[in-house]
Amino acid sequence: MAGDNRTPVTVIGTGSMGRALAGAFLAAGHPTTVWNRTPARAEPLVEQGAVHAASVADAVGASGLVVTCLTTFADTRAALRPAAGALRGRALVTLNSGSPADARETAAWAGTHGARLLAGAVKNVPAAVGEPDTLLYYSGDRGVFEEYGATLRVLGGDTLHLGEEPDLAALYEMAVGAMLLPALVGFFQGAAAVQARGLRVESMVRFAGKWLDMIKALLPVYAAEIDRGDYSDGASSVDLFLAGAAHDADLAEEANVDTAWLVPLNDLLRRAAEAGHGPHSVSALTEMLRKGA
Amino acid sequence: MAGDNRTPVTVIGTGSMGRALAGAFLAAGHPTTVWNRTPARAEPLVEQGAVHAASVADAVGASGLVVTCLTTFADTRAALRPAAGALRGRALVTLNSGSPADARETAAWAGTHGARLLAGAVKNVPAAVGEPDTLLYYSGDRGVFEEYGATLRVLGGDTLHLGEEPDLAALYEMAVGAMLLPALVGFFQGAAAVQARGLRVESMVRFAGKWLDMIKALLPVYAAEIDRGDYSDGASSVDLFLAGAAHDADLAEEANVDTAWLVPLNDLLRRAAEAGHGPHSVSALTEMLRKGA
Repeated sequence: MAGDNRTPVTVIGTGSMGRALAGAFLAAGHPTTVWNRTPARAEPLVEQGAVHAASVADAVGASGLVVTCLTTFADTRAALRPAAGALRGRALVTLNSGSPADARETAAWAGTHGARLLAGAVKNVPAAVGEPDTLLYYSGDRGVFEEYGATLRVLGGDTLHLGEEPDLAALYEMAVGAMLLPALVGFFQGAAAVQARGLRVESMVRFAGKWLDMIKALLPVYAAEIDRGDYSDGASSVDLFLAGAAHDADLAEEANVDTAWLVPLNDLLRRAAEAGHGPHSVSALTEMLRKGA
Repeated sequence: MAGDNRTPVTVIGTGSMGRALAGAFLAAGHPTTVWNRTPARAEPLVEQGAVHAASVADAVGASGLVVTCLTTFADTRAALRPAAGALRGRALVTLNSGSPADARETAAWAGTHGARLLAGAVKNVPAAVGEPDTLLYYSGDRGVFEEYGATLRVLGGDTLHLGEEPDLAALYEMAVGAMLLPALVGFFQGAAAVQARGLRVESMVRFAGKWLDMIKALLPVYAAEIDRGDYSDGASSVDLFLAGAAHDADLAEEANVDTAWLVPLNDLLRRAAEAGHGPHSVSALTEMLRKGA
């Protein structure tokens, strides 16, 4: 693909996600400059046609659009500090995890150096970058999104701007990401139980997938209950979950599994029941999760 | 639909799931006898053409196939005890939650009364009963599954027999079900965070759904790692999750959310890192979940 009339892009940070991002830009024909503290990690990209800048300042200077993919906002600011003088007029797009407060701080920091910030998140694994269904959301400077939206869409077909506030993507990233570790540990516990019986974990994958589909189908129902503050539908009640929690000890016994991590979850259920939510929807647990509830 | 040549079925227990089961049998034209301790809860089914038996013994006597939908195996045995004399020669199908040990005990109990047990689980909500995609799995007497498989498929198109051991469905039910509460509490925590910002929880549903799709896509990868006992792929490493856990305090602060329930999850990550799994796949947490690990 001739990239001569495509928007030049700089990608800073070429870990596994950064390499996927730069690779997608290269595949779409964008002149791509990369920079990584350990240049060897950018080698495969150079072989694909990327230019490895001699310094981070050169990297920032090479393109109007600078995408960073480092671990945290603090890492991003630290990496860009030697290039602060080159930031003026640049569109800076951060793709890292971090708190909303850290996103706001980074937006302010970019502003003092004359750069406009769009802080985003990739809601997927590196292998999914560039797919039509892959979700990336951004928040912050709307002008950057309007100017570079088509280029950013190279990274995933489901690309959107959440709003002008620079911390919205970080907020949603945190909010949505809160399901990941707990769901996975639930799966790993089930895996340990299946293995203890001498069965292959593979044999539960299809069932677990169906289970996730069901959870997905329930989310809009629970969201509407929480938005209304009306938990009166008891189809999947706190009491029903409490009855299920009684099986935890059986599972621990039967499958030699340590279910200690479930104790605070069951405490949440008990506290909800004590607060009168026993016959109410399990979404009433949201009320228990507020500090001081 | 003329139900005269359809297999007669008895459904014992007409809570919300039991009503859905009996309703599906009625809709498919099966002569359906129901029994519930509180007969009023079976009224809507009688209006749809079900016969409400005068006693549980009459209900068991009415059909060769007896489906129970009570809360636990103990409830099932207690409800059937007055009908024990009528159980001989019946195919008993239990659809309730419970431990594998409880399933084995119920199979033995049914055997002493001359009944064959198939112990199953509906992996979905009542509204999904009867849908082509709805999963129900059974374990126990294969003869019952062969004889009544077509009738049971009325409850969900994705119906299967896991094996002759009566506790396999309970084992998988426990294993797969272990994801539900943790995943939901993760969602509720995210909901509280989004609400604390004055945003509607509805606004995060689409993103959370995509996140669940991604988790679903990861399960076969993790299952293969656990089956092989090879956690060396560090693409989503324990260390990466530990870095993410550092944001919990930020979330608690920013969104006024009580993240105390995450403490034991983060302890699992720390223990895994201490055991040398830091750079390994997060699926190595399975090893930490074994008792005494």
